[in-house]
Amino acid sequence: VPRERLTGSVAGRLSHYLHVLTQAKKAGRDSISSQELADYTSVNATQIRRDLSGFGKFGRRGVGYSVDLLSAELRRILGAHSRRDLALVGAGRLGEAIATSDVFVDHGFHVGAVFDADDDRVGGQCGPHVVSAMSELQPYLRQNGVLIGLVAVPGEAAQEVCDALVEGGVRVVVDYSGALLDAPANVLVHNASPAAELLRALYLAGQT
Amino acid sequence: VPRERLTGSVAGRLSHYLHVLTQAKKAGRDSISSQELADYTSVNATQIRRDLSGFGKFGRRGVGYSVDLLSAELRRILGAHSRRDLALVGAGRLGEAIATSDVFVDHGFHVGAVFDADDDRVGGQCGPHVVSAMSELQPYLRQNGVLIGLVAVPGEAAQEVCDALVEGGVRVVVDYSGALLDAPANVLVHNASPAAELLRALYLAGQT
Repeated sequence: VPRERLTGSVAGRLSHYLHVLTQAKKAGRDSISSQELADYTSVNATQIRRDLSGFGKFGRRGVGYSVDLLSAELRRILGAHSRRDLALVGAGRLGEAIATSDVFVDHGFHVGAVFDADDDRVGGQCGPHVVSAMSELQPYLRQNGVLIGLVAVPGEAAQEVCDALVEGGVRVVVDYSGALLDAPANVLVHNASPAAELLRALYLAGQT
Repeated sequence: VPRERLTGSVAGRLSHYLHVLTQAKKAGRDSISSQELADYTSVNATQIRRDLSGFGKFGRRGVGYSVDLLSAELRRILGAHSRRDLALVGAGRLGEAIATSDVFVDHGFHVGAVFDADDDRVGGQCGPHVVSAMSELQPYLRQNGVLIGLVAVPGEAAQEVCDALVEGGVRVVVDYSGALLDAPANVLVHNASPAAELLRALYLAGQT
């Protein structure tokens, strides 16, 4: 599957396979079967074999896919091979949860700095970071060439934060507020919607 | 599109459309175009029109989809029309963020109770809930017929929590720990992986 032909759906599935492979690697696994990938991603095994068939012969019958080889190939295809800094806006409960979690680190993503509009939070701690004022956001983004911003503020404040990130040169905004954010066409807004994911999971479980 | 034919990918997209419609409704909108749905979901407009064409004539050329009609139809198809209680395990930062957020409430999901294995947290507050001990988890699940469990504990504790939820009759486990969880075939584990979503978003943004 050449890079230019990946749709959003395929890119999404490949990203989840890579996540499972990364976790399997941490658990000391050398190989993984398409059935295991299916169990851990809720994608059916036939679809998985189809998605991965274009990448050459990683699967060996009865042995499964090599965790290392397949991870490296998926990283190459997704362009996920370098360290990237994230700017986090919002030092509330969710911001703290993000700043102290290692779910991003496993994939080379690092929260580089945390910002908040609340003066009471500025100068305080958020995970390993000292919280900076919003006035420092754009200088930070530009000086460090940061292209990814995480929005962990309430819905009513999210558009303003999004605008500030875009103004600072961010190209990908991940929105945890649930709000619908408007951004220029050259900026991708990912609406991280845990409720939508739960709706899908329930549907698939037949709990409807 | 008959219910039995929805794949996981389609169910996922419909869930995201429903999320956008719910937010649009809150913002006072009566109609929405396929292009707007595309902008807010990173799904292309052609795919959206295809996904929704099976549901009858909700779209009117030049006007867009009726927010109310399309929401109702998507809820019906996804079976998302009733209130559902969630059991949350883990009263740390992420648990608190979940318990105090309204992202689930908009879709009829309510955190009904919060549990934690840490004695220091039991009896304390987590959002509007008093944290219960793990020994109370299974009685709670059974007495209330709760079918959905959220796992907001560190990866190394997640399998044990998953087992306890399954033992209590939960059919859908949403795992925020990043760990790979094993569960019986009749239980769906949704691995909520913000890092995988970010990989996909970055790929789509061409920031690779």
